[in-house]
Amino acid sequence: MAEGKKLAGAGLRGQVAGKTALSTVGKSGSGLTYRGYDVKDLAEHCQFEEVAYLILKGELPTQAQLDEYKAKLKTLRGLPQALKEVLERIPKDAHPMDVMRTGCSMLGNLEQEDTSVLGVFPNQEDCVDRMLACFPSIICYWYRFSHDGVRVQENTDDDSIGAHFLHMLRDEAPSELHERVMNVSLILYAEHEFNASTFTARVCASTLSDIHSCVAGAIGSLRGPLHGGANEAAMDMIEKFKDADDAEQGMMGMLERKEKIMGFGHAIYSESDPRNAIIKGWSEKLAADVGDTVLYPVSVRCEEVMWREKKLFCNADFFHASAYHFMGIPTKLFTPIFVMSRLTGWAGHVFEQRADNRIIRPSAEYTGPEIRKVTPIAQR
Amino acid sequence: MAEGKKLAGAGLRGQVAGKTALSTVGKSGSGLTYRGYDVKDLAEHCQFEEVAYLILKGELPTQAQLDEYKAKLKTLRGLPQALKEVLERIPKDAHPMDVMRTGCSMLGNLEQEDTSVLGVFPNQEDCVDRMLACFPSIICYWYRFSHDGVRVQENTDDDSIGAHFLHMLRDEAPSELHERVMNVSLILYAEHEFNASTFTARVCASTLSDIHSCVAGAIGSLRGPLHGGANEAAMDMIEKFKDADDAEQGMMGMLERKEKIMGFGHAIYSESDPRNAIIKGWSEKLAADVGDTVLYPVSVRCEEVMWREKKLFCNADFFHASAYHFMGIPTKLFTPIFVMSRLTGWAGHVFEQRADNRIIRPSAEYTGPEIRKVTPIAQR
Repeated sequence: MAEGKKLAGAGLRGQVAGKTALSTVGKSGSGLTYRGYDVKDLAEHCQFEEVAYLILKGELPTQAQLDEYKAKLKTLRGLPQALKEVLERIPKDAHPMDVMRTGCSMLGNLEQEDTSVLGVFPNQEDCVDRMLACFPSIICYWYRFSHDGVRVQENTDDDSIGAHFLHMLRDEAPSELHERVMNVSLILYAEHEFNASTFTARVCASTLSDIHSCVAGAIGSLRGPLHGGANEAAMDMIEKFKDADDAEQGMMGMLERKEKIMGFGHAIYSESDPRNAIIKGWSEKLAADVGDTVLYPVSVRCEEVMWREKKLFCNADFFHASAYHFMGIPTKLFTPIFVMSRLTGWAGHVFEQRADNRIIRPSAEYTGPEIRKVTPIAQR
Repeated sequence: MAEGKKLAGAGLRGQVAGKTALSTVGKSGSGLTYRGYDVKDLAEHCQFEEVAYLILKGELPTQAQLDEYKAKLKTLRGLPQALKEVLERIPKDAHPMDVMRTGCSMLGNLEQEDTSVLGVFPNQEDCVDRMLACFPSIICYWYRFSHDGVRVQENTDDDSIGAHFLHMLRDEAPSELHERVMNVSLILYAEHEFNASTFTARVCASTLSDIHSCVAGAIGSLRGPLHGGANEAAMDMIEKFKDADDAEQGMMGMLERKEKIMGFGHAIYSESDPRNAIIKGWSEKLAADVGDTVLYPVSVRCEEVMWREKKLFCNADFFHASAYHFMGIPTKLFTPIFVMSRLTGWAGHVFEQRADNRIIRPSAEYTGPEIRKVTPIAQR
């Protein structure tokens, strides 16, 4: 065991593990910026594709650059036949994140990144654009085939990634409102510094592995209930309440029984999650649009109770639950949407890691037995 | 950005990122122990299955425990039909590590780990035993189908994992010598503290994700040329030399041109890699067995030149190249053997992480632009 410097906290909390120019999280207690832009500003003024461009290429695109980028992404929506055949072999009761992980991994077999020269990655951006364009196809192809017996047409003409996803899922092009909310949602989830899935991608990248390995690894980490999936857990909870008063009573009971309540608080943010107000506003608009009188008021009451009782604020996930639900998205597909978005952040971090790399290889504190001799098996 | 403590070196080198009772690496400059046993002692007296048992369950098995464990593993060699059909769709020119990653990921869809109760993993050991038994089947099924057009029979009656692998690969049960060398090799590669692939598995595990995600992520990291694959690179080099003098000349030229030479030195070991002498001894025996007069002397000369010129020692990978080659293993399958072995270490670390978990979420040093406003796209 190499002599290592002991860290104060578990989980590397508060330890700088590298550099990034991609984002700041919770600078002076709140706030989230992507390459210097406040996420509120981006969510108000941009499409997701503009933000993807910003994260992957460094600057916001001009209109001509954006048009070209979106046109390119549109051509990359189709899935290879072999990948479709793999997706058709994944059962209906599989975990959708396992489907995403497998779809990404299989894509890496069929369209391998060029890593022929050590440390040089000439088509990394193309590989990421391809994933960005076809991840919605992967999840929808599997979902529609396994649940509805339909081989979905993945080459739609929709203007955006969010619309493409909703179109495949629901067999019709989405309304302007729904497309806008998808854009906002994908922007809010796009990047978040050294969270566990992004850090997974960077550790993988530090061995100079290929981009599909980095992303498949990140998907696997995002699958964990302590990371992604909080919006699904929030949905499971809020849909059990029949109105706001029922939510009040239910929440108080859960708090009394010290049950885990998902969608509140954050490892880094201390006062509020800057993404919450944004998605909450859109959830309210969607509630009005769909004529909801239950789910949105229930969600608001949950927020009030948690703040009143625990001084815990909603994080990005909580109002995403109702927002996605109002758009007719099945709960089990919430985390795959996170993948479609966060792919941009993962890739941005992989590019950074590759550009200034040292293999990530920490040390451990040894707590095991002292040196001992093997007893021959007959005498054990 | 949370205020983080800055680390001295890149790549978390020398930083303690957690605890482990599994191994010590390079304690006082050399040596490798698994749960207190010197790897030399284990490689001399044990089968790989005993070491897997040690790593996964904490102690070396009695004869009765070992018999039961091996009998169990034998029943788990067969692949689900859907997984075979996936492997048949992966092209011949795919990267074998992408095949392993995809095979593991697909298995996770078909035989999902039970993670229904947060933080409780009742069948984690069964899932790992299953992977341990069927990973050789995965790589051989794909290899034989894509390269030879053969649907290999994966339910063989071989006594050990190493023999099972060689049998499927070569259509005949291996000699005693070959089976012994496979045992030794699998023992040597089984565990190595917080290397990049193991750390990937632990980061993934820290989100409480499933075991297939952890292992698929680890495979992706091991794929990187800075981590796994050094034995393949060593093979590519040594097979170019026609005799020891040619190797001498070739190596001197490479050193002069400052070319990267794989299989020497180590990030943690400073004086020698304790695994080298062991596999070198077996490579010599295999050379005698096969009547080799080129590859082994070439390898020895490479070792001499690197020590004389650079004071660099052979690591575990260098003599693995000739050893595997003498057993008729295609070079591209060297790193998948590493997976078959290191799976035990990855799993042991995942179990540890799960038993005393905090999500691994470090901080980053921000180097990007200051806060700025979004310019409307028409004015960019």
